Amino acid sequence: MKKIAIVGITGYSGLECFRLLYYHPEVEVAKVYATSHCGEKLADVFPQFDGLTDLVIENFDRQEVTEQCDAIFFATSSGVSKELALSFIEQNFPVIDLSGDFRIKNPETYKKWYKNASVNIEYLFKVQYNLADLGKATKPYIANPGCYATATLLALAPLVQQNLIELDSIIVDAKSGLSGAGKSLSEASHFVNVSDNMSMYKVNMHQHIPEIAQQLKVWNSDFHALQFTTSLIPVTRGIFVSSYAKLSTGVRFEQVCEAYKKCFANKTFVRIRRQMPQLSDVIGTNFCDIGLAYNSVTNVLTVVSVIDNLMKGAAGQAVQNFNQLFGYDDCLGLKFMPQI
Amino acid sequence: MKKIAIVGITGYSGLECFRLLYYHPEVEVAKVYATSHCGEKLADVFPQFDGLTDLVIENFDRQEVTEQCDAIFFATSSGVSKELALSFIEQNFPVIDLSGDFRIKNPETYKKWYKNASVNIEYLFKVQYNLADLGKATKPYIANPGCYATATLLALAPLVQQNLIELDSIIVDAKSGLSGAGKSLSEASHFVNVSDNMSMYKVNMHQHIPEIAQQLKVWNSDFHALQFTTSLIPVTRGIFVSSYAKLSTGVRFEQVCEAYKKCFANKTFVRIRRQMPQLSDVIGTNFCDIGLAYNSVTNVLTVVSVIDNLMKGAAGQAVQNFNQLFGYDDCLGLKFMPQI
Amino acid sequence: MKKIAIVGITGYSGLECFRLLYYHPEVEVAKVYATSHCGEKLADVFPQFDGLTDLVIENFDRQEVTEQCDAIFFATSSGVSKELALSFIEQNFPVIDLSGDFRIKNPETYKKWYKNASVNIEYLFKVQYNLADLGKATKPYIANPGCYATATLLALAPLVQQNLIELDSIIVDAKSGLSGAGKSLSEASHFVNVSDNMSMYKVNMHQHIPEIAQQLKVWNSDFHALQFTTSLIPVTRGIFVSSYAKLSTGVRFEQVCEAYKKCFANKTFVRIRRQMPQLSDVIGTNFCDIGLAYNSVTNVLTVVSVIDNLMKGAAGQAVQNFNQLFGYDDCLGLKFMPQI
Amino acid sequence: MKKIAIVGITGYSGLECFRLLYYHPEVEVAKVYATSHCGEKLADVFPQFDGLTDLVIENFDRQEVTEQCDAIFFATSSGVSKELALSFIEQNFPVIDLSGDFRIKNPETYKKWYKNASVNIEYLFKVQYNLADLGKATKPYIANPGCYATATLLALAPLVQQNLIELDSIIVDAKSGLSGAGKSLSEASHFVNVSDNMSMYKVNMHQHIPEIAQQLKVWNSDFHALQFTTSLIPVTRGIFVSSYAKLSTGVRFEQVCEAYKKCFANKTFVRIRRQMPQLSDVIGTNFCDIGLAYNSVTNVLTVVSVIDNLMKGAAGQAVQNFNQLFGYDDCLGLKFMPQI
Repeated sequence: MKKIAIVGITGYSGLECFRLLYYHPEVEVAKVYATSHCGEKLADVFPQFDGLTDLVIENFDRQEVTEQCDAIFFATSSGVSKELALSFIEQNFPVIDLSGDFRIKNPETYKKWYKNASVNIEYLFKVQYNLADLGKATKPYIANPGCYATATLLALAPLVQQNLIELDSIIVDAKSGLSGAGKSLSEASHFVNVSDNMSMYKVNMHQHIPEIAQQLKVWNSDFHALQFTTSLIPVTRGIFVSSYAKLSTGVRFEQVCEAYKKCFANKTFVRIRRQMPQLSDVIGTNFCDIGLAYNSVTNVLTVVSVIDNLMKGAAGQAVQNFNQLFGYDDCLGLKFMPQI
Repeated sequence: MKKIAIVGITGYSGLECFRLLYYHPEVEVAKVYATSHCGEKLADVFPQFDGLTDLVIENFDRQEVTEQCDAIFFATSSGVSKELALSFIEQNFPVIDLSGDFRIKNPETYKKWYKNASVNIEYLFKVQYNLADLGKATKPYIANPGCYATATLLALAPLVQQNLIELDSIIVDAKSGLSGAGKSLSEASHFVNVSDNMSMYKVNMHQHIPEIAQQLKVWNSDFHALQFTTSLIPVTRGIFVSSYAKLSTGVRFEQVCEAYKKCFANKTFVRIRRQMPQLSDVIGTNFCDIGLAYNSVTNVLTVVSVIDNLMKGAAGQAVQNFNQLFGYDDCLGLKFMPQI
Repeated sequence: MKKIAIVGITGYSGLECFRLLYYHPEVEVAKVYATSHCGEKLADVFPQFDGLTDLVIENFDRQEVTEQCDAIFFATSSGVSKELALSFIEQNFPVIDLSGDFRIKNPETYKKWYKNASVNIEYLFKVQYNLADLGKATKPYIANPGCYATATLLALAPLVQQNLIELDSIIVDAKSGLSGAGKSLSEASHFVNVSDNMSMYKVNMHQHIPEIAQQLKVWNSDFHALQFTTSLIPVTRGIFVSSYAKLSTGVRFEQVCEAYKKCFANKTFVRIRRQMPQLSDVIGTNFCDIGLAYNSVTNVLTVVSVIDNLMKGAAGQAVQNFNQLFGYDDCLGLKFMPQI
Repeated sequence: MKKIAIVGITGYSGLECFRLLYYHPEVEVAKVYATSHCGEKLADVFPQFDGLTDLVIENFDRQEVTEQCDAIFFATSSGVSKELALSFIEQNFPVIDLSGDFRIKNPETYKKWYKNASVNIEYLFKVQYNLADLGKATKPYIANPGCYATATLLALAPLVQQNLIELDSIIVDAKSGLSGAGKSLSEASHFVNVSDNMSMYKVNMHQHIPEIAQQLKVWNSDFHALQFTTSLIPVTRGIFVSSYAKLSTGVRFEQVCEAYKKCFANKTFVRIRRQMPQLSDVIGTNFCDIGLAYNSVTNVLTVVSVIDNLMKGAAGQAVQNFNQLFGYDDCLGLKFMPQI
C-alpha cells in the first residue's frame, strides 16, 4: 500500500488523480495540498465527496511528504512544480508531474512558449518525459505528457518512426472540451459562450507544439516542424485530433495499417480501430482509440485519435506512469469501460 | 464467482448492467441475449468494447440459462419479461427484473397504465418489489424499481412513513435526461429537438405513477394519490425530482431533517445533504442525494432528490439487489465516485 | 423616428435591446452607455457586430440623453437605475426600466429581498409596473417585469383573477437557462458545471417572489403567498414554468380553458396551446405559450408557460412597452418566428 | 409582391425558407408542398407556427405553381428536384433549387458521388450554380450551393483565384452541427449519441467534394484535388471550416490579407475579421465570417470560415439568389444580427 500526496487538489487534474487513486488497490491518498481552502475538509469544498473521505486540504509541506508518503503527484499549473519539486529530484523521491514544467528539454524553447524562465538544465536531464504507452517509467521523476501531445504523438508515432510520410506535410487539427482549459473563470468558459459554439484559440501558439515537436524529432531526426491548431468544442471531456499527412513515395495504405498494429500490439490502452473512433468511445476511460483512412486522389492519410483529456491525457496516464514506476501492471486501477 | 445472463443487452439498461457486472469481483457475464444482432460479437455491434470482450449476442435460451448460469438480469422493455420469466419463477431461479412487468401488484392497475394484460396474480405475489436502500432482497425474483419511482420514493419515504406531511398536498415535478427514454428513435430524441429545449410529456399518464402510489400506500394506508409530472431536460443521464408538500400541523422543520437522517442512517448510497444537491453530484454513481428546504410563509417543504437513472435508477440498483440476494455487501462493485 | 439611448449595453439585456431596436422601423439607437469599455467602438468589444454599427460605448450622460434622445432603456443591474433615473422621473422623460429597482411598491419589501434601500416612495408611485400583454403603458416611466415574473403571472392570471383555484395551493417550479443569470463569471456559470447538470438555487429567496405576489394580490386581494422555486437547466435561453394548483370547489376544467382563451383573446404574444408547449416553440420570439392539463384524481391543474427570457422576459417586452408608450402597434419590430 | 411556392416544407431547409420568406417585404408564401402531412395545416404539424399562418400542406402541383406563383424553392433531398423541375426549366420559370441535383455539371461525377443517374446534360447547362456572394444570379434556374461548399469556397476563393497557394497542399477540416444532417431519424442523430461527442463521417466520400472541386477548377484550371473531411459537433446550427495550405513561393501574408479584403470588398455578407471568428458570431444570420493566420515556421496559412448552415448555407443564400434574380437588393429580408 503506497501513500500518495497530491498537490493542486482543487483543479480538474488534481480531482481526477484523487478519484483514480482513491480506489487504486495499492494506494492510499494520504495528503492533499492546495493554495486555497487550506484547513477545510475536501468533502466540504467538493460536496460530491460527502461521506467518501475525511481528508483535509492543507498547505504544501515538503518534509511531511518525504517522511509520510511514497510518491507525490503534481497536478499544478505550469510554474509551480519547478519551484516546489527540485528538492524531490535531489532526493530521488518519486514524482509524477502533470504540469508542463519539466517536459521541454531546451530551456530557450521552454522560455519562448511558457513565457517563463526554465528550471536549470541539470534538473531537466534527471527527469524522464514518458509517453506511457510507448515508454517505460524508470527515472524517479516523471514528466507526464500533455493532453494534446498524448493524442497527437500516439497518432503520429508509427508514421514518423518509420518514415511512412512526407515529414513536412503534417497538419494537425485538434479539438478539446472545456475541462482541458481548467477551472479558471473567463468569458471563454462561460456556458453561454461555449454552448452551441466552436472557436479556434492560441493559433500557432499552443505550448504543446514544442512538446510534440521535441518527441517527433527524438523519433526521427529528419523531422522539422508540424502545423498544429487547437479549437474548443462544446463538450466537457475529450480531445479529438484529426491528423493529415502525405504518404512517402512508394508507401501503401496496407503497409501503414500494418505499422500501427505492430506499433501498438500488446498496448492495452491504444486501440487501432476498424472504423473511425468517436469521442464517446473513450470518455471516462484510459484508452486512446485511433482510426485511419487514405485518399488515393490526394495521397493524404487521415488519422483520427481520441482520448479523455483528464484520463489518458492527464490523471489516467499519470497513474499508468506511477504503476510502471512501482512495478505494478500498467492497468492496475485503470480498467474503466466506456459508458453508453 | 457467479455466472450471469443479461437479456436485452442492446438497450441502455442492458449495456449498463454489462458495464457494472463486467468488473464486479464476484461475477462473470456468461451470456448476453437480444432480439437483434444475434450471432454478432458484442464488440462488433458496440465498438467501444473493442478488445474488452469476446461475448456473442445470442437469442434467448431458457435452458442454457438455468443450466449454465446462477442468475439472470432482464433489461427488457415492458411486456417481455412477463413472457419469458414465468418458468424462472416456477423454478425459484434468481431473477433481477429491471422492467415494469412485475412491479404492480394489482392486475387492473397494470392493465390501465401499461395498456397490456398483466401476468397472472399468483406470479405477482411470488415477486418482491425491492427499493434496495430501504429493503432487503429475499425472494428469488426481484422487481427492480423504476428510475422516477426510486428518486421519488427515497425523497418521500420519511415524510409518508412518519405522517410528517399533509398526504393530499404532495406535488412532484420530476425531470429526466434522454437516456431515460431509451434508445428508440423518435422526433423527441433527435438532437435538434432536445438541445436547448425542455418539454413536459405523458402528463398525468406516466406509468411510474401507480408504482409510486402503491409503495406510498404500503408505507401509509391513509395515502391516496400524488400529483406527479415528468419533463425532459437536455442531459444524457440523470433524474432531478423536486417534491413539494405541506407539513402537518405541529411538525417542525428540524424534526423533518432528523427523520431523514434517521431513516437513511447507515445507508451508504443515500446521502442527506446540507445544501441542495445537483445532478452532477451523482452522475456515474449509485448515490441518491437528497436536500431539504422549508418555507415558513407557505408551510411548504421542498425536497430535491437526484440520481443517475441508469445507475441507481436501473443497473446500479439491480446489482445492489443482486448483491443482497447473494449475500454480498451492498456496495460490492458499486463504489463509483462522482467525476469532476 | 425615435432616438433611443441604452444604459448597460454590455450585458445580455442591453445587447438584446440593441439587437431588437436596431431594426425597429421607428427607432434609431443613438447612444449606448456602460461603465466598462467606454470610448471603445461597440463593434470592437462585440466583434459579431463588425460592419453593422459605428456606435461608441460611452459613459452615461444624463443631459445628452434628454437633449438628443426621445427615450431611454435601462438594462442595468438592480441598484443602478434607482441612482440614475430619478431626474428622468421628475422630467417625465420616457424610461423603460428593465431592472428590478422600481417594481416593488413597498420599500420594506424591496429592502428585504434586494438587500438594498429602496427609492423614495413618491417616485415609486410615479412608475407604472406594466405586464405588457395584460396592461397598457401610459405613465412615462415603465418598470418592465422580470423574466420569471412574466412567465408566472401570465400563467396564473386567469386563475387568480377569476378565483378558479384554491389560492393557498399554488406551487410554481420554474426553470431558467443560463443567460437569465447574466454575464458575470462564477463557478455556477462555468460550462463544465452547467453542461449535463441541473441545480436548484436561491431556494425560497428569489427576488421575483415579491414581484409576483404583489401583482397576484392586485388581481385578487384574498391572495396571500405562493411557493416558488427556481432551477438552472443547461440551455442558454428560456424559462420553463410548471405551475400547480387545486381547482376551487365546483370549477370544471373546461371552464378553466375557457377563461384562458378569453383572458388572452386578441393578445398576439400569448398563445393558449392545445398541447403542452416546449421551450423551442418560443426561443427567439416574443411569445409566451401556455398549456393546460387537469388531473381529476388529485384535483390539480398543471399549467406550463414558456418564454425566451431575453425577449418576452426582458428586451422584447421592453420594446413592447415602448411601442405602447409611443402609440405604435404592440407588434412593431417584434415579429419574430420561432426557428426550427 | 411575389408569390412563392416551397417544395419540401417539412424539412429543415424548407422550414427555414418559410421563416425567411414569411417576413420578406416583397414576398408572399402562397403554396407549401410536401409528401407527408398533405391536407394538414402547417400550424398543426408545426405547432410553433400557431397563430402565424393558415397555409395547408399540399401535394405538389406543377400547374398550380406556374399559374399562381412567381417562383418556386426546392428544399428537397437530392433526387427529387431532378424529377420535378424539368418542366420549369423548359418554361424558364424561376426556380431556386437548394438540393444537389443540378450542381454538378459532369453527369459521370454526379452519378459517382450521388449514387444516382444525373439529369440530362442539356438541362444541366441551362442551370446556373451561383455562390451568391461572388456571383450574380441571371439564369432563371439557380442551383443554390451546398452548406459545406459555401463555407469552403468563400474561404479559398482569393487563394485559388490568385494563385497564392500551392494548389496541391489544400487540407480542409470541416465541422457541422446536426441540422446539417437533416431531420431523418438515425442512431447518429439521437441526442445521447451526439451530446458530449464528436465524430468524423463520410471520410473522403462527402458529396460536396466534387462540388467544391468543380468550382475551384473554374477559378483556376491548374487546380486538381483537395483533401476534405467532415465531422459532426454537438451543436444544432453552424459550419466551422478550418482550411490549411502552403503559401506559394514569394507570397507574403500581408499580400494574402489584402487579397481577401479586395475580393470581398462591398460584399455585405462576407466579413474578413481581424480575429478568428466563432460560430456564435454568425448563427441566425446570413454572414460568412473569415479569419486568417500564418505560421512562418511551417509556411502554412490557416483560414477559418464560419456560417449558419441553414441560413448562408441554405435558405439565406437561397433568398439572396432570389433577390438577385428579381432585381432586389441582396440584403432584402436578410438583415439578421447575431444574437448574444
